[in-house]
Amino acid sequence: MGGKTISGFSKLSKMGKIKWLVENFFKDPETVKRELASYLLANEEQQRILDGFSENTISNYPLPLGIAPNFLVNGVTYVVPMVTEESSVVAAAASAAKFWLDKGGIHAKVIGTLKTGQVHFLWYGDPELIASHADELSAHLITCSKDITCNMDARGGGIRNISLINMCDREPGYYQLMVEADTRDSMGANFINSILECCAQALPVWFEEHLPDNVPVPEVIMSILSNYTPDCRVHAWVECPVTDLGDFEGELGPEEFARRFYTAVRISHIDPYRATTHNKGIFNGIDAVVLATANDFRAVEACGHTWAARSGKYKGLSKCSVTDGMFKFELEIPLAVGTVGGLTTLHPLAKRSLEMLGNPDASTLMQVIAATGLMQNFSAIRSLVTTGIQKGHMRMHLHNMLLRLEATEKESAQALKYFEDKTVSFPELRKYIELLRSTVSAKSL
Amino acid sequence: MGGKTISGFSKLSKMGKIKWLVENFFKDPETVKRELASYLLANEEQQRILDGFSENTISNYPLPLGIAPNFLVNGVTYVVPMVTEESSVVAAAASAAKFWLDKGGIHAKVIGTLKTGQVHFLWYGDPELIASHADELSAHLITCSKDITCNMDARGGGIRNISLINMCDREPGYYQLMVEADTRDSMGANFINSILECCAQALPVWFEEHLPDNVPVPEVIMSILSNYTPDCRVHAWVECPVTDLGDFEGELGPEEFARRFYTAVRISHIDPYRATTHNKGIFNGIDAVVLATANDFRAVEACGHTWAARSGKYKGLSKCSVTDGMFKFELEIPLAVGTVGGLTTLHPLAKRSLEMLGNPDASTLMQVIAATGLMQNFSAIRSLVTTGIQKGHMRMHLHNMLLRLEATEKESAQALKYFEDKTVSFPELRKYIELLRSTVSAKSL
Repeated sequence: MGGKTISGFSKLSKMGKIKWLVENFFKDPETVKRELASYLLANEEQQRILDGFSENTISNYPLPLGIAPNFLVNGVTYVVPMVTEESSVVAAAASAAKFWLDKGGIHAKVIGTLKTGQVHFLWYGDPELIASHADELSAHLITCSKDITCNMDARGGGIRNISLINMCDREPGYYQLMVEADTRDSMGANFINSILECCAQALPVWFEEHLPDNVPVPEVIMSILSNYTPDCRVHAWVECPVTDLGDFEGELGPEEFARRFYTAVRISHIDPYRATTHNKGIFNGIDAVVLATANDFRAVEACGHTWAARSGKYKGLSKCSVTDGMFKFELEIPLAVGTVGGLTTLHPLAKRSLEMLGNPDASTLMQVIAATGLMQNFSAIRSLVTTGIQKGHMRMHLHNMLLRLEATEKESAQALKYFEDKTVSFPELRKYIELLRSTVSAKSL
Repeated sequence: MGGKTISGFSKLSKMGKIKWLVENFFKDPETVKRELASYLLANEEQQRILDGFSENTISNYPLPLGIAPNFLVNGVTYVVPMVTEESSVVAAAASAAKFWLDKGGIHAKVIGTLKTGQVHFLWYGDPELIASHADELSAHLITCSKDITCNMDARGGGIRNISLINMCDREPGYYQLMVEADTRDSMGANFINSILECCAQALPVWFEEHLPDNVPVPEVIMSILSNYTPDCRVHAWVECPVTDLGDFEGELGPEEFARRFYTAVRISHIDPYRATTHNKGIFNGIDAVVLATANDFRAVEACGHTWAARSGKYKGLSKCSVTDGMFKFELEIPLAVGTVGGLTTLHPLAKRSLEMLGNPDASTLMQVIAATGLMQNFSAIRSLVTTGIQKGHMRMHLHNMLLRLEATEKESAQALKYFEDKTVSFPELRKYIELLRSTVSAKSL
């Protein structure tokens, strides 16, 4: 069992896995073993649940859970749970939410809740023959899936449409069955995948039974949900008279601010280099809530970015307008999330996050998440077009740098004061702390 | 201090914040307070570090840290640390790495390491005048930034280029300064942002001092790094003779497998609905390592997806070829990550993750991350074109569903056996467990 490669690893016990790891990849096995164990939960049952989420688990990786209060969304006040390792994300969201609190808050509307999945298959028959049977095929597949869908149907969800799509202009013989479903408050990935695999099994049988003998049988390549869900979409916005925006940093008036803000958003529509970072900022907010509620941030990211590229050019996701003295800032984004099933109620803190949000249904969670992305974006652009991002960000970052330098609380307080009106960089900070320490040593001589 | 909105929240102590939260948003404040506290680290110093990453922190959000062994990348064997809440991600990565272990492993090459940032400004003067001064301006700005760059210069990094880009065809008067920098083993966001703000301050001064009096002064809109880093890019691939691929599930031969695999990858280049999920799978692997090493997954996601859309159509990130009997599968992706600075060495488990990987430099980490994304994708497509994703995935998911039903270990074992050859769904599983329990109750009567 020695050495850096191993067979049958997954079959080892958790302790066996950790033993192999620390003995082969760490210089101080015992210390690492103790450290890994120190992150486990005292409650063994809860630890077993966490371990069950993934495979070959050796510890828990902690991320800070922060909260952003004062989110007024459609007249309801929320405290938004946010899991992020990035400094200033939670502070920025909270600050923007507070800014809009007395301006009517954030408005949000769900545009649709349809999820999608596809059966991809190759078939080299007469396209018109299959097109003329498309409705019949669709009805047949919906019937075949009844065993899987009956519970969801009873809850008001289920398959909304199965359509046959001819993709032969892009690849000879390539067709899709596109399934659209309403999965209610669940994210619905397993539900859709089960329907798709059922359809994939029924498809060749249907060809054999319903089409003439000389018609070829289709070859299913794969069946899988699509994370691109443009029809599971939400719109969030804020608006107020320009004059209500007030002054910024005591020097920038509301009209100037609105013009600069508008220009910054406009630039994200012109330049993909800027659009990437603009949207990254939006996802700083979105992903933090997605993580806190144990939804899947890779799915949300992939979908949002594909949506950002839908015009053929990758663009910023938010829009700004300044018309007739009104400032409006908005975000429209597809968000496929759930509030039941999956890990949402299995992860003990995700369950608490949802409780913090008033146990919302999926549509309400979509609205809160979009509102958080919008506020994150507002805060970032507000900083960029006024003081610059570094002023606030470096202040936050200063804290991390002080930790790296193992500064005492007293040293940290002195450094924070000293750099209040200065540019912070790691070398400058190190120099300052070293100076402090040498002064102290000199004094104690 | 009662009520759902609050002023001065950030100034409250951690305990004050938690008290306000639980009293206003939870039905059972004391229980929630205790539960939030139960996730805190026993080591107060380490907890202070974690709290310092973010703001308004109330607890730690644990995610499982798993490991995928047998990653042979450029001849070096790694155990890859992966933080993910999604079942089957770690198992799939490990399984694919093992598959390629005796086929030469994974190859990877860094194509470039340039990071980017932009100063966006408006200027309504003669475009030819500024174009003719571009080199002089660039040299001046590099000199101005020396205080910030001297340490990075000494480490072999620093500014590589500052170019003036005329964007007036897209927006009247819109120009950029595009800064390209090598930030060595650090992610470099703060370094680049500091340079940019320095350039932004120097820009109008330079216009006033070096151009004729009647020339207008530029208005800087914003200065900020770009997360789109196409020139910080890595290429990872696997290849072997088709015949070495072996048989799959005892029924699919290597040629058939290669053809179906190729077709599945090809479909991700044709259809954005499929491309989104295809890439989502790649990021399942990538983000898990990015998180485990305390890098920024939002940055990596935004960049990768913009790259996926660079042709004007959103496409799958990986490529497959089957030529002259050779199967090749590859992934080229921009990845801006660091192994020093930021949180990489501040987060105690990220530090251990890096140690597990042999304390790699940033380029090596790029290679390992790309290799993980490639393996994740290989595993997903292999499942899709052979048994279908649900067989393996639902097996993993079964475990979570059993937890939701609070199944005992004995019940779980029975259920796993029973569903070995059956389709799993939550309703079916619940029925089965209820049946088990009623049988047991009946027996005990």
